[in-house]
Amino acid sequence: MTIETVSKARACGGTQGVYTHASSATGTPMTFSVYVPPHDEGETLPVVWYLSGLTCTHANVTDKGDYRRACAELGLILVAPDTSPRGDGVADDPAYDMGQGAGFYVDATQAPWTPHFRMWTYVTEELPALVGAHFPADMTRQSIMGHSMGGHGALTIGLTFADRFRAMSAFAPIVAPGQVPWGEKALGGYLGDDPAAWRAHDAVALIEDGARVPALLVDQGDADQFLADQLQPQRLADACRAAGIDLTLRLQPGYDHSYYFIATFMPDHLRWHAERLR
Amino acid sequence: MTIETVSKARACGGTQGVYTHASSATGTPMTFSVYVPPHDEGETLPVVWYLSGLTCTHANVTDKGDYRRACAELGLILVAPDTSPRGDGVADDPAYDMGQGAGFYVDATQAPWTPHFRMWTYVTEELPALVGAHFPADMTRQSIMGHSMGGHGALTIGLTFADRFRAMSAFAPIVAPGQVPWGEKALGGYLGDDPAAWRAHDAVALIEDGARVPALLVDQGDADQFLADQLQPQRLADACRAAGIDLTLRLQPGYDHSYYFIATFMPDHLRWHAERLR
Repeated sequence: MTIETVSKARACGGTQGVYTHASSATGTPMTFSVYVPPHDEGETLPVVWYLSGLTCTHANVTDKGDYRRACAELGLILVAPDTSPRGDGVADDPAYDMGQGAGFYVDATQAPWTPHFRMWTYVTEELPALVGAHFPADMTRQSIMGHSMGGHGALTIGLTFADRFRAMSAFAPIVAPGQVPWGEKALGGYLGDDPAAWRAHDAVALIEDGARVPALLVDQGDADQFLADQLQPQRLADACRAAGIDLTLRLQPGYDHSYYFIATFMPDHLRWHAERLR
Repeated sequence: MTIETVSKARACGGTQGVYTHASSATGTPMTFSVYVPPHDEGETLPVVWYLSGLTCTHANVTDKGDYRRACAELGLILVAPDTSPRGDGVADDPAYDMGQGAGFYVDATQAPWTPHFRMWTYVTEELPALVGAHFPADMTRQSIMGHSMGGHGALTIGLTFADRFRAMSAFAPIVAPGQVPWGEKALGGYLGDDPAAWRAHDAVALIEDGARVPALLVDQGDADQFLADQLQPQRLADACRAAGIDLTLRLQPGYDHSYYFIATFMPDHLRWHAERLR
């Protein structure tokens, strides 16, 4: 369980680091970033997981930022994993929405995606153990958020491990991958043709099947080019209403699917998480 | 004086745009970004110029952000030009610190840099006219800031047009290019071997030669890898003390030369500008 430091820089009084390690989950080198805010010696801090969307690596959110100032003020560690295994020996697809950069936070059961595409195990088991071992993290206080495919990851992981995460939120998430083109392609490719196997990786299906959390925060731009075809937040609203989950779904006028949208509402989300991580 | 919109997105309640136009100053297409904060119809807003450093385009600051929230709160437009002309017909150098991406905010007088390398005219004449014509900008209220080579640009332009800019500040600026390797190479290459021709493009020399502004704000990381060889802020401190210029020079412990450093102190600088732009 060793990690190698790729880079480290002072930022907003804390430290923004980028790290690599040999992942046993994916069988590849994996890169992730961790922001550690200013803190007292020996102090441990709550951990926010940020899962990125299609085409991203750890670097998109790390470079585009707009979370460090809020994390510094609120005393939050933020961890940003990659979105898939990568490298020459790893299967890929010419499309942007399958293969490298598009791991969908599942453990693939289908060729050619086995054995490397195991992002579920990576994000829920291996990387938490590394973070707990190498950073001043209070692993009893975790929360999770993400964007688009990463919003899907945050919701499905948060719903599955409801005892682990005190808060979860998403920016423009894919809420029902089993019912939209991105998800049908990815879940079909990684998990096989039987939609029954997809339900554990579909936030709306998980809620329909009994998963419960006290509250969810979702922001969605109403000028998002993927809103109608791929995102369909109304499906989450309907499922939460039927299940008695307190969903705050905010349709943000004029915002698109870009990081400008994420950055705008990132401090709101971090404050919402911080209140629940106290 | 037409401009073409490359992209536009809602961000922090305002609009982040990227634009191109055929520049008469450089004889090339030029790309720049403008953030316009939320404002009332018909209202005009002060303009902050942000000049980027070596290797950058308009995109570095635009993507890495951490200025939009403060600009939205303070009611500031932020303009980010490119750092040089670019393209197949434009002279270049294999080194990162000369040619494309390294215009040094001067009008070159030497081959092969003539006729395209005219960033002084571009940033001080052509682009301000465009901004004044196409955006809700109050051109009687301008200020200027920049990083590294862009800090050099901000200081030299601000000192030269002291009546135009109500505030100027810099992150890790090259304060005395005539006396450090980056500047000797660039000013020698663009302006010729006679150091007398460099003094109009050297902040310390400009102050020694009589340029005056009421105040300057400079942040400098003490872990900056270029501090001792290229930046040498003490030269600016000495010149300002001799000239009676109120310089606030803050050595920031642990910070390097990266955008993490800029982002950390960007809101401070914007507030400092906003106070002087009221």
